[in-house]
Amino acid sequence: MRRKQTPPPSSDYVAGNGLVDRRLFLTGTAAGVAFSAPTAAGELAIEPWMTTPGAPFVPYGQPSRFEDKVVRVGAAPPNAPGTGATRTPLHLLDGAITPNGLHFERSHSGVPDIDPAVHRLLIHGLVKRPLVFTLAALSRYPMESRITFIECGGNSAALNQKDPAPLNAQALHGLLSSAEWTGVKLSTLLDEAGVEPNASWLLAEGGDAASMSRSFPLEKALDDALIALYQNGERLRPSNGYPVRLLLPGYEGNMQVKWLRRIKVTDGPVMTKDETSKYTLLTPDGKALQFVFPMETKSVITQPSPGLTLKERGFYEISGLAWSGYGKIAQVEVSVDGAKSWALAALQEPVLPKALTRFRIPWRWDGGPAVLQSRATDESGNIQPTRAALLAKRGPKALYHFNAIASWGVAQSGEVTHVYA
Amino acid sequence: MRRKQTPPPSSDYVAGNGLVDRRLFLTGTAAGVAFSAPTAAGELAIEPWMTTPGAPFVPYGQPSRFEDKVVRVGAAPPNAPGTGATRTPLHLLDGAITPNGLHFERSHSGVPDIDPAVHRLLIHGLVKRPLVFTLAALSRYPMESRITFIECGGNSAALNQKDPAPLNAQALHGLLSSAEWTGVKLSTLLDEAGVEPNASWLLAEGGDAASMSRSFPLEKALDDALIALYQNGERLRPSNGYPVRLLLPGYEGNMQVKWLRRIKVTDGPVMTKDETSKYTLLTPDGKALQFVFPMETKSVITQPSPGLTLKERGFYEISGLAWSGYGKIAQVEVSVDGAKSWALAALQEPVLPKALTRFRIPWRWDGGPAVLQSRATDESGNIQPTRAALLAKRGPKALYHFNAIASWGVAQSGEVTHVYA
Repeated sequence: MRRKQTPPPSSDYVAGNGLVDRRLFLTGTAAGVAFSAPTAAGELAIEPWMTTPGAPFVPYGQPSRFEDKVVRVGAAPPNAPGTGATRTPLHLLDGAITPNGLHFERSHSGVPDIDPAVHRLLIHGLVKRPLVFTLAALSRYPMESRITFIECGGNSAALNQKDPAPLNAQALHGLLSSAEWTGVKLSTLLDEAGVEPNASWLLAEGGDAASMSRSFPLEKALDDALIALYQNGERLRPSNGYPVRLLLPGYEGNMQVKWLRRIKVTDGPVMTKDETSKYTLLTPDGKALQFVFPMETKSVITQPSPGLTLKERGFYEISGLAWSGYGKIAQVEVSVDGAKSWALAALQEPVLPKALTRFRIPWRWDGGPAVLQSRATDESGNIQPTRAALLAKRGPKALYHFNAIASWGVAQSGEVTHVYA
Repeated sequence: MRRKQTPPPSSDYVAGNGLVDRRLFLTGTAAGVAFSAPTAAGELAIEPWMTTPGAPFVPYGQPSRFEDKVVRVGAAPPNAPGTGATRTPLHLLDGAITPNGLHFERSHSGVPDIDPAVHRLLIHGLVKRPLVFTLAALSRYPMESRITFIECGGNSAALNQKDPAPLNAQALHGLLSSAEWTGVKLSTLLDEAGVEPNASWLLAEGGDAASMSRSFPLEKALDDALIALYQNGERLRPSNGYPVRLLLPGYEGNMQVKWLRRIKVTDGPVMTKDETSKYTLLTPDGKALQFVFPMETKSVITQPSPGLTLKERGFYEISGLAWSGYGKIAQVEVSVDGAKSWALAALQEPVLPKALTRFRIPWRWDGGPAVLQSRATDESGNIQPTRAALLAKRGPKALYHFNAIASWGVAQSGEVTHVYA
């Protein structure tokens, strides 16, 4: 037996096409407004798992077998094992932490199998005392933890295409993850090595077979750069840099150099293969922008999104993630009528700098067509642009750092698809 | 070649036996003070993983094979499969999130293998509209995320014993974990069901074969109780209640009823087997305290701790976890001279209510004996008691809710052991 989907009073709508004031559902004033059409109660069945003892404990736990579709998906060229990327299933997750098993992966020559007892980190170049650190040595330094996002510079690149790719949130935007990272501040190690006065940049080099290498300014090193050893409490995962990675909060993903083996203090950028042959933005005049570091203010709606078909009319929560490489998210607006009207979403506390922020707003779907969009603004006033504005500014060949507003179309059938709007 | 372990100026010590001002190492004023005796740099070796492509991606990632000792450890009676508990390896983790695979487990009849398509949640009793929710229905409600700890009521119970058990932090205090939990506020569902005026308590019942059942006050249900569906971003793990658990932030672990199938609104506590035959505190006068809900203000040093032998003199970071079921942690003091002197540790931001808070303070070990202790105070002024004070107050048979100061002894050999001090 279905309960009636009582609509809220019209004064509780906060934008066109059914966006509803969230307080209506959190303060008891919506009593009688059925959100999800729960059925009236009868007797609950006695299920088999209630009558026999369950499984024993295991030393390291795994997800339920019923969640075997919640996995990373990606592409790896057949002639280069481990090269490529896999993407986080954003549409199947909630909250703002990515579990370690689902953190997106990007590597240029596979995932190295590094013995932490053998691995060393070298700090040299323009320093008074070149130093080599074992993992045991690093573990004795003052540490810090910070929850921060990592986004690949190439995330959402498919939205540069002329036509909307018929893909889901994972395939389009899933080169984005979040974790609590713990490690030693790079500035602490640089203090000990003694940076020379003429130093201005650093080189970070990975211990993988691709020797992934990037240059970054000394200013960032002395600000919030972390030599990360832990990810969500445990040691880094192999595909996320085990046993040690560089963390440059807010900067594009490839600069968070994994399997970190060497930091060289220099007097300028080194112009490595990884910052000249790629990770530059081609502009309409044929020049390429190099060293575009922070990932821009951005958001994406994860629920509803393609693959999550609406099965019936009524109330849903629209939810998604917002982030900025420049600092905290200040607000997220949501539209369900193709940008004709917008309403403010609730931001999940704590709102942290350079971290994913979950936003939420209730929506009453009346069964008609809808276009769902979110627009983030960060604390510096950076506003996520429309796709048209972004492309007009930089053309379709910049490829990286695509941060424009994304759109999900909802059909009368309830099907959700990627659209341009 | 070892660098000299230069001691800091004496004015930088903040308590006896070598506790050092943390700012010394984070502001560059400690240049030349070697924290971990890194070796001077020579050429780094070319390791095998640098010369061949690494492993391909996997859909769901796992820890490095070199971390195979970082596991839950516990005991399960041979005649009752799955009954018992496993403990989080606190001494091998850092930060304040517990990865899902290492969240402590406690179950009374194993881990049920619940099909989420079949599972239902019933809300009934003193309500106007008894309701049954599918998982799909619950997923449409407004959600919230919160990072909170769960601690078993029986955690640290071994410290009631007359002599210090020769165990490590995991075995003594590892019935403690943390996660970002996401779900629907129970108050939202109760609003929809319509609570009758004479309601004052609720019963929560699990869908495991033990039908784990606990009563809790309506006030808590309307405050911050969550019907949790996600744990660190992904669906709950089976041993943590998949597909739905009750979350009563700050309350003792067994009340966070896993595999939740039924909530009954009542006019008083139901006096289930799980709140009469156990989870009560036996006091010296022979009476038992029932319904002791919040876990008290507490802390534990995780590094150094038993099993993590200090290999040489010099600087180390002392680090640990503090928490309170009543709210936020206000301060953590650390002593390394058996409580003769104390210094304030740094608290890792963000400090969240009813959440694990990581604390840190540097220490220069001079090679002599030391006794390491931490003492937490929460925002309500609750101070973690000494073991002597706690036992004097409630006797040694209370068993549950042991929150006194714990002590690690450091021998001249560098070995760390559990002691009473």
